[in-house]
Amino acid sequence: MLYIIKSMDIYQQALNEHARLRGKLNISLKAAPDTKEALSIYYTPGVGEVSRVIAEDHSQLRDYTWTNNLVAVISDGSSVLGLGNIGPEGAMPVMEGKAMLFKQFAGIDAVPIILDVHSADEIVSAIKAIHKSFGGINLEDIGAPTCFEVEDRLKNELSIPVMHDDQHGTAVVVLAGLINAMKVVNKTLQACRIVLIGAGAAGTAIAKLLTLFAHPEIIAVDSKGVIMPDRPDLTEEKKFLSSLHMLAPGYQYTLKDALMGADVVIGVSRAGMITADDVRTMSDKAVIFALANPEPEILPDEAKAAGAAVIATGRSDFPNQVNNVLAFPGIFRGALDNNVKQITDDHKIGAAMAIATLVENPSADMIIPSPLDPRVCEAVSKVIK
Amino acid sequence: MLYIIKSMDIYQQALNEHARLRGKLNISLKAAPDTKEALSIYYTPGVGEVSRVIAEDHSQLRDYTWTNNLVAVISDGSSVLGLGNIGPEGAMPVMEGKAMLFKQFAGIDAVPIILDVHSADEIVSAIKAIHKSFGGINLEDIGAPTCFEVEDRLKNELSIPVMHDDQHGTAVVVLAGLINAMKVVNKTLQACRIVLIGAGAAGTAIAKLLTLFAHPEIIAVDSKGVIMPDRPDLTEEKKFLSSLHMLAPGYQYTLKDALMGADVVIGVSRAGMITADDVRTMSDKAVIFALANPEPEILPDEAKAAGAAVIATGRSDFPNQVNNVLAFPGIFRGALDNNVKQITDDHKIGAAMAIATLVENPSADMIIPSPLDPRVCEAVSKVIK
Repeated sequence: MLYIIKSMDIYQQALNEHARLRGKLNISLKAAPDTKEALSIYYTPGVGEVSRVIAEDHSQLRDYTWTNNLVAVISDGSSVLGLGNIGPEGAMPVMEGKAMLFKQFAGIDAVPIILDVHSADEIVSAIKAIHKSFGGINLEDIGAPTCFEVEDRLKNELSIPVMHDDQHGTAVVVLAGLINAMKVVNKTLQACRIVLIGAGAAGTAIAKLLTLFAHPEIIAVDSKGVIMPDRPDLTEEKKFLSSLHMLAPGYQYTLKDALMGADVVIGVSRAGMITADDVRTMSDKAVIFALANPEPEILPDEAKAAGAAVIATGRSDFPNQVNNVLAFPGIFRGALDNNVKQITDDHKIGAAMAIATLVENPSADMIIPSPLDPRVCEAVSKVIK
Repeated sequence: MLYIIKSMDIYQQALNEHARLRGKLNISLKAAPDTKEALSIYYTPGVGEVSRVIAEDHSQLRDYTWTNNLVAVISDGSSVLGLGNIGPEGAMPVMEGKAMLFKQFAGIDAVPIILDVHSADEIVSAIKAIHKSFGGINLEDIGAPTCFEVEDRLKNELSIPVMHDDQHGTAVVVLAGLINAMKVVNKTLQACRIVLIGAGAAGTAIAKLLTLFAHPEIIAVDSKGVIMPDRPDLTEEKKFLSSLHMLAPGYQYTLKDALMGADVVIGVSRAGMITADDVRTMSDKAVIFALANPEPEILPDEAKAAGAAVIATGRSDFPNQVNNVLAFPGIFRGALDNNVKQITDDHKIGAAMAIATLVENPSADMIIPSPLDPRVCEAVSKVIK
C-alpha cells in the first residue's frame, strides 16, 4: 500500500532534516545590543526603569516584554501522537514543530516546554510556577484523564488563556467539518446519531462541543465497547459520555452494534477500527471522520466504495483534512490580541463556524478549508474577543 | 552630576524603546512549514519518527532539537539589579535583556523564564520539572541565601550545566580584572589584604573564587560591619567569609577599620560606601573595584584623587568595566559545544585567566577587555571543556 511506503520515506526524510537543522527554532532579536548605548537601553541601567514600572503595575508586562505575543507549548510526553507515553524527551520535536506552526500560521512566538513530572498536581504546580513568563498556555499531548484535571485547574487558577489543543483544537475542527458535511448530506446535526470511537482527550472534547452545539445522540465507544452508564468505575468524563445515547441498559453493545443505522462516525482511535461492512450497515449518506494518524480507522477509498457520502481524515494526502492547525493559531492570535483571559465554549463554537463559513460551496471532497488557507487564522481570531 | 542626569535620560529612552519594540525577543524558524510536504516532515507524521528515536535514546535530544543551543534565563525576581525584591513581573525585561546578550555575544538561544515561587524548594521543583526543555540553566537575580541552596541542589541533581550568574559571572570577571590589576601595581594576590563590601551572592562567590585561586586575606563586610566568626546566627556562607581574615576576635570592626592598610577593596554593595578619606588610609597603590550599579561605592575621579592606583566599576562610561557579559556567554558557549554537564571551579578560573590574557599590556585604565571585544566569547569558551 502506497501510503505506508510513503510514510517510511517521510520518516527518513524527517530524521535527516531534523539532524541537519539541529532543531527547528531560533531566538532572534528585535534590536541589536551591539553598542554601549544600546546595552544601556536594552540592559542595564535603562532596563531597570522598565522593571520598576512593571513591578508597580503588572498589567504593563505585556506592553514592555515579548509576553504579549508569546505562548508556551507544554507537554509531559504522556500521549505523543500515535506513540503514546514516550516521555518528555520524545515529545520535544513535536512541541518544537507545534511552535513552528504557531509562528508560521499566526505570527505567534511559541516556546516548547517539556515537563519531567506527570501527576496532575505536579504538572499544575510546574506550570503555575512559570506561567507569568508567557501570554498563553497551549497544553499538548498530555494523556487522559490527567489532561482534564490539569486544564480545568489551570483555567480556574490562571489569568492567561489555557487550552489543551488535543481536546479543543480537534473538537473545533471536527465541528467545523460536520457543519459543512451536514449541508452535503442534507441532514441536521440535531437529528443525527453519531458514533464516537475513542473516549480520550479528543473524543471527550468532541462530544462536549457537539452536545453544546446541537445535542445530537452520541454513542461513545472505547476499548470495552459502548460506554454504558451502568459500567463500574467510569471516570467523570466517561460518565458524561455514557449519558449521550438512548441505548437500553442491561446489555454490552459493541462498536458494530452502535454503527448500525448511524449517520456519522467519528474515529479518534486507531487503524482498522471501521470495516467496509460496518459502513454498509450505517444509514444512507453516511459521514465518516476517520481521524486516526497516520493510518485512519478506514481508508477513504474503501469507505467510499462501501457507500459513505463524505469522508474526512487527519491526513494531508486525502481530501477533507481535519487538522488542528485550522484552529489553534487563530484562537491564540485572537486571545493575545484582545487580551482574552479564558477560551470559552462560545469561542470554540464561534471558531468552528468561522472555519466552516470559509468553504463557500461545501461538497463531498471539500468540507474543510486547506490547512494552508491564509484566511483561516484571521477569520478565527476575530471571534476570540 | 552628569551621570545622574544621563541616567534619567537613559531611563526614559529605555521605556520608550521597550514600548516601541513590545519585547526584545522573537522566535524565528530555521525552515518554513509552508507546504504539505514540509508540514509532513517538520510536523506529523514525519516528526513522529524523530520522537521515537529520541525516546529510545535520550542523548539524541540534542542532535534533533534546539536544546543543543538553548539556555533558560531564570529568575524569581527576588533580587533584581539595584531594585531588590520586585517580583517576577518586574524581572522579565531584565531576563529578556540577558537573553539578548546570550544571542548577541555567543549566538546562544536563550528563553527568559520568570518564576512565581520563591522558596528554595519550590524554585528547585519548578526548574527540575522544566529543565529537559533546555541545554543549560542560567540563574539570575535570585536573592541570597536562597540562591546558594537553589544552585547547589540543581548542580547536584541535574545533568545540564547550571550557573547562577550573579555569583559566578561576577566572580570570574572580578578575578580577571584583579589578575591584571596586580600586574599594574606590581603586587601578588596571595600577599594582598582584600576588603570585600557586600556579602550576598556576588560577594560570596568572589571570595570563594579568590580563595581557590590565591588564598589572599579577605575581610568581608556586611551591613553590620566586618563578619567575625563569633557573630551569632551566621549562615553557612557567612561562616566561610568570616574565616578568611586574621582579625583578632572579641571586637566588632567597622568597614573603616578594615580598609586601613588594605591593598584591594571590592565593593558589591551600594553608592557612597567608600569615601576619599577611606582610600587615603589604604596601602600604597590601592586597587578599588567599586561595582555597585548604577552608582558605584565611590566615583573613579574621587578615588583617583585620593591616591588609588587602579579603579574598576560596573559602568560603561568609566574605564575598566566589570561586566558579566565578558564571562557568561563564553562559559555557556563552551559548555553547550563541548557537552559539559557542570561548570566547575577550574572552568571559572580558566575563564578568568582567558579574559585577563586578552589584555596584552595591562595599565591603570585597561585591566579588562571591553564587553564588546569580539574575541572574548571564543577565548572563554575554549577553556570550558
